[in-house]
Amino acid sequence: MYELGIVKRHITRADRVAVDQLAGFGVATVHEAMGRVGLMKPYMRPIYAGAHVAGPAVTVLLHPGDNWMMHVVAEQIAQGDVVVAAVTADCTDGFFGDLLATSFRARGAGGLVIDAGVRDVKDLTAMGFPVWSKAISAKGTIKATIGSVNISVVCAGALVNPGDVIVADDDGVVVVPAALAAKTAEAAVAREANEAEKRAKLGAGVLGLDMYKMREPLERAGLRYVD
Amino acid sequence: MYELGIVKRHITRADRVAVDQLAGFGVATVHEAMGRVGLMKPYMRPIYAGAHVAGPAVTVLLHPGDNWMMHVVAEQIAQGDVVVAAVTADCTDGFFGDLLATSFRARGAGGLVIDAGVRDVKDLTAMGFPVWSKAISAKGTIKATIGSVNISVVCAGALVNPGDVIVADDDGVVVVPAALAAKTAEAAVAREANEAEKRAKLGAGVLGLDMYKMREPLERAGLRYVD
Amino acid sequence: MYELGIVKRHITRADRVAVDQLAGFGVATVHEAMGRVGLMKPYMRPIYAGAHVAGPAVTVLLHPGDNWMMHVVAEQIAQGDVVVAAVTADCTDGFFGDLLATSFRARGAGGLVIDAGVRDVKDLTAMGFPVWSKAISAKGTIKATIGSVNISVVCAGALVNPGDVIVADDDGVVVVPAALAAKTAEAAVAREANEAEKRAKLGAGVLGLDMYKMREPLERAGLRYVD
Amino acid sequence: MYELGIVKRHITRADRVAVDQLAGFGVATVHEAMGRVGLMKPYMRPIYAGAHVAGPAVTVLLHPGDNWMMHVVAEQIAQGDVVVAAVTADCTDGFFGDLLATSFRARGAGGLVIDAGVRDVKDLTAMGFPVWSKAISAKGTIKATIGSVNISVVCAGALVNPGDVIVADDDGVVVVPAALAAKTAEAAVAREANEAEKRAKLGAGVLGLDMYKMREPLERAGLRYVD
Amino acid sequence: MYELGIVKRHITRADRVAVDQLAGFGVATVHEAMGRVGLMKPYMRPIYAGAHVAGPAVTVLLHPGDNWMMHVVAEQIAQGDVVVAAVTADCTDGFFGDLLATSFRARGAGGLVIDAGVRDVKDLTAMGFPVWSKAISAKGTIKATIGSVNISVVCAGALVNPGDVIVADDDGVVVVPAALAAKTAEAAVAREANEAEKRAKLGAGVLGLDMYKMREPLERAGLRYVD
Amino acid sequence: MYELGIVKRHITRADRVAVDQLAGFGVATVHEAMGRVGLMKPYMRPIYAGAHVAGPAVTVLLHPGDNWMMHVVAEQIAQGDVVVAAVTADCTDGFFGDLLATSFRARGAGGLVIDAGVRDVKDLTAMGFPVWSKAISAKGTIKATIGSVNISVVCAGALVNPGDVIVADDDGVVVVPAALAAKTAEAAVAREANEAEKRAKLGAGVLGLDMYKMREPLERAGLRYVD
Repeated sequence: MYELGIVKRHITRADRVAVDQLAGFGVATVHEAMGRVGLMKPYMRPIYAGAHVAGPAVTVLLHPGDNWMMHVVAEQIAQGDVVVAAVTADCTDGFFGDLLATSFRARGAGGLVIDAGVRDVKDLTAMGFPVWSKAISAKGTIKATIGSVNISVVCAGALVNPGDVIVADDDGVVVVPAALAAKTAEAAVAREANEAEKRAKLGAGVLGLDMYKMREPLERAGLRYVD
Repeated sequence: MYELGIVKRHITRADRVAVDQLAGFGVATVHEAMGRVGLMKPYMRPIYAGAHVAGPAVTVLLHPGDNWMMHVVAEQIAQGDVVVAAVTADCTDGFFGDLLATSFRARGAGGLVIDAGVRDVKDLTAMGFPVWSKAISAKGTIKATIGSVNISVVCAGALVNPGDVIVADDDGVVVVPAALAAKTAEAAVAREANEAEKRAKLGAGVLGLDMYKMREPLERAGLRYVD
Repeated sequence: MYELGIVKRHITRADRVAVDQLAGFGVATVHEAMGRVGLMKPYMRPIYAGAHVAGPAVTVLLHPGDNWMMHVVAEQIAQGDVVVAAVTADCTDGFFGDLLATSFRARGAGGLVIDAGVRDVKDLTAMGFPVWSKAISAKGTIKATIGSVNISVVCAGALVNPGDVIVADDDGVVVVPAALAAKTAEAAVAREANEAEKRAKLGAGVLGLDMYKMREPLERAGLRYVD
Repeated sequence: MYELGIVKRHITRADRVAVDQLAGFGVATVHEAMGRVGLMKPYMRPIYAGAHVAGPAVTVLLHPGDNWMMHVVAEQIAQGDVVVAAVTADCTDGFFGDLLATSFRARGAGGLVIDAGVRDVKDLTAMGFPVWSKAISAKGTIKATIGSVNISVVCAGALVNPGDVIVADDDGVVVVPAALAAKTAEAAVAREANEAEKRAKLGAGVLGLDMYKMREPLERAGLRYVD
Repeated sequence: MYELGIVKRHITRADRVAVDQLAGFGVATVHEAMGRVGLMKPYMRPIYAGAHVAGPAVTVLLHPGDNWMMHVVAEQIAQGDVVVAAVTADCTDGFFGDLLATSFRARGAGGLVIDAGVRDVKDLTAMGFPVWSKAISAKGTIKATIGSVNISVVCAGALVNPGDVIVADDDGVVVVPAALAAKTAEAAVAREANEAEKRAKLGAGVLGLDMYKMREPLERAGLRYVD
Repeated sequence: MYELGIVKRHITRADRVAVDQLAGFGVATVHEAMGRVGLMKPYMRPIYAGAHVAGPAVTVLLHPGDNWMMHVVAEQIAQGDVVVAAVTADCTDGFFGDLLATSFRARGAGGLVIDAGVRDVKDLTAMGFPVWSKAISAKGTIKATIGSVNISVVCAGALVNPGDVIVADDDGVVVVPAALAAKTAEAAVAREANEAEKRAKLGAGVLGLDMYKMREPLERAGLRYVD
């Protein structure tokens, strides 16, 4: 449940070292390292292929068709932050375009994750400003109703607390609670440690059936081969 | 972000008096009384018309296609509780049917709110056991993976903490944080206080334009009448 | 394209005799009588089974999340009118509830067709006030931005001019241009004239294949029977 | 892949005794009895609550917007058959209404399952003719292109061979291959045998945790209780 | 409501100078210049990134699964026109491919906007023929039923009159009525005039809060800063 | 209906010569050559533009959220095969990523068609491993339940038998039954034979109206030209 009309100026951002480590991994790896939780819904898509960002979340709660608070959140951005924008009801309007992107970038933002629409995507792509959104829409918004900044929000089905780490790439968006950032980064490191070896084996034609020793459990589960 | 494998046995339920007061109002009124926040997405629909429930939330986190934790949450239900079931990824399977409803009812549950599917809806309707769900589906589930009970969950876009008040009717589902239950009940009372009078006026043909004194602000906003 | 800030007070309603005739037919029949055009999208559903209305359209253009103009349109309703509400962008908020329904009814409205959400559906059902909508949602709206009343609008994919006849039932909503109302009513009468006879034949086991003399054209089209 | 322009007159219907046995069970039970396969997608909904049918499938393949073959399939209906209608591409048009229902009923049809739209739902409901469909739409169709009757079709994600048993109720639609009808009916009988006993226990407050002996496996899976 | 079987040969196209001016602006700017109306639904997407077109609309009304009228509209295309194709019911079939694109281009078409599917998108991309559509689908269509050319149509939720200006880019599609083309172009020029200055300020780190003088109205609206 | 727990080791693949011929055509052409049947639903999209594959199907049936059988199917892949993955209920999880792609490629797979989600799309794109899927999602899966390999499956609305030819490109996915591969290839050749000539004519400004001699049938159908 949301408290409206609040701007929290001081938030505790996840440990910078952990954020930088997490930045080295893809969303799928980070999500696995957390025990398969923390993903936003798969309708959240990058506006251009190859986008990749990791950074602490500054959050903003918007109302449908109203982007006033986007200007309020701009002031709260620190270098490397990722803005996470939630809306109080479903809306595909274009809340964000090239002017706001110019402002966000000047404040140091690494990217935007928004459970709504954005516009000027050609310009945003040319700027290399990464955005993950639910829609692309030229529909403009008004500036009439206040929401909040840096409160906990639900964005695309995921709870985001200000300061949590956002990792986003072509596969989607994952949220790592600030308190778990270091532990998750370690788990991600461990997870990737033997990936190269596995990849080499699989690339040489070794089957996962053998590499992961699945034949016996599959047989036990009742699998049978027929001609 | 979810911690898996946890069952919290002791939760702080919203004040009973406030819950009982809130039970006297519809979802639309409660949502307005909270300042227009707290609603689940409108895809959450009752399985039969006229269903209405209010009670403290006991929460359960499920995995897609796996209803094992529904049996775990059953033990944690106190008289009048509403079970709120979230899933770690989108799923329309039928996680709940007449046997579980029989068990939930025996434990005192007032109803179920589930961000997934249910089945045996004819039996559930005959029992008068109210359910709000995303889908109706005969698809059965397995019992293989553990989730959690009585942690904070995101259900249909809304954050639900165990003990929060759930109010649900034909218009949808709203979540009232336990700490705001009394205050929200008061606001709802106040809101409805003069509704009867308003209804009488409108029913007599008085226009909202006049009753709410909108003509002047509309004119100021630029509205003009033409023939 | 919409002109904003306009209320047209005088509209030309379809001929009353034709409206009354059209009221005797279902939506499917009227749509056929117009040559299979004029339907709104099938996502428009009545809030209760058995709803049926026919009347001239008074139109209102809303903005997402803002129902201010609903009070403006109320004043323009004449006895038997059907209010048709369009929105400038997709929105499922609940723009209409029991208070507005009380007002609309007092002004003589026969029903509402809205390309958005409504709430208080239990009350609306008890009142017998028929509504066709895209969604049911308890989400409230603000009163901040002006739209227009009695301009041409696109509602659920159909162009509606003020004064056109709206016919709505369990099968959906159809729009009959005012100028075509009489002609369409005649065509509907003609269409239904021999339905009783057809129904009797089909009920007696005569096949459409024979009654409509389809066997020969089907064979010509290449249909062949195998064992 | 579909062969067009074919009507198979002789099909092998599932054993009548097995069909009658299956008619005594709900869709959820039958689906479980088959090992949790055979369901159509959950978007298939009955046009009125409480509809329930079981019978051998006669199949028809339609083209979008064209219901010509509905008249062809009518002739192939035997007493108690359920017509299963598939379409070569997504379409929500109303392919079926009260006249065709009159004809189908006169031929002995028990109901219709159609991966598209239907209309005249008020009349169909009054007739008690059960239909499961993807949509309700007044949109009419033409009679121009031939499809096929009694070939294997994919309907709402499920493969249906002519003669297979269709069971449909408020929970959805399940397909039982003719060759498995007797075995599935037996499995359903066995499955329901001890349901009454289970229901009584659960109704008396016994937990599924104990009745199904889940506490130990849950603990082994890592579940822990906290205060 | 549509009249079928009509081809209007003479339409009044928007002023060429205004069209050329509008071609210099993106969809978001043009939509703002019109007062935030005129957009098609955001499901309309370009088949390749970077597509941009502006030109007078020639319109065509199609039936689901039938592209016969696409050949009829081809003859009515003048140099620089944009074809706008509407369908009488929802359909994702591929109504348009490389052969028709070759023909349209030879007639001078600048692009296609279609509320349905297209195919051969690899070829269309190689040709640089821009298309905005609801879907991509290889599904072919028949040539059996007549629609109309150069009547007013509803395409993706927007009313399009023949001769109106269509502007389309990565952000979507906007419709400018012919009579408003010059005025809208002027408004767009004015709107962009001070954008460069704003962009420079925002890029230098000036906040929108200050540049737009929002701090005081936000405070008045109740926004408060907390630590 | 699916039999679970089966792996068929020996399947009859479509004739290699026919497969190679079909590889020379796009999906739209192949679908037309089959008489406009055999397409998967248009929601199946390639993960990168320009992907194109043709090869015999090896099929795998998965359960939602469980990719265990992907390792089982890997062993059954022969050089040039296309893996077709169906799921027993709707699911968007990421069943497939770069490790499995490495394994599939090492076994000779030409690509993957999956009625669910995939992840690591950046890596898959870099590898040039073509995938057609319903979704992109980082969500991981478990390995707990057995399905089947090389049984007949319904994938995205199309029936696929092991050994059938899959052709997939930017326009979607089509299934050619093994027995019809040669005949379909011939029909595709014939269809394309005179396309170059047609394209040249249309490119020179000849209208389809004249080239296809449509003027007379259009007039007969009632089309009339007005000024």
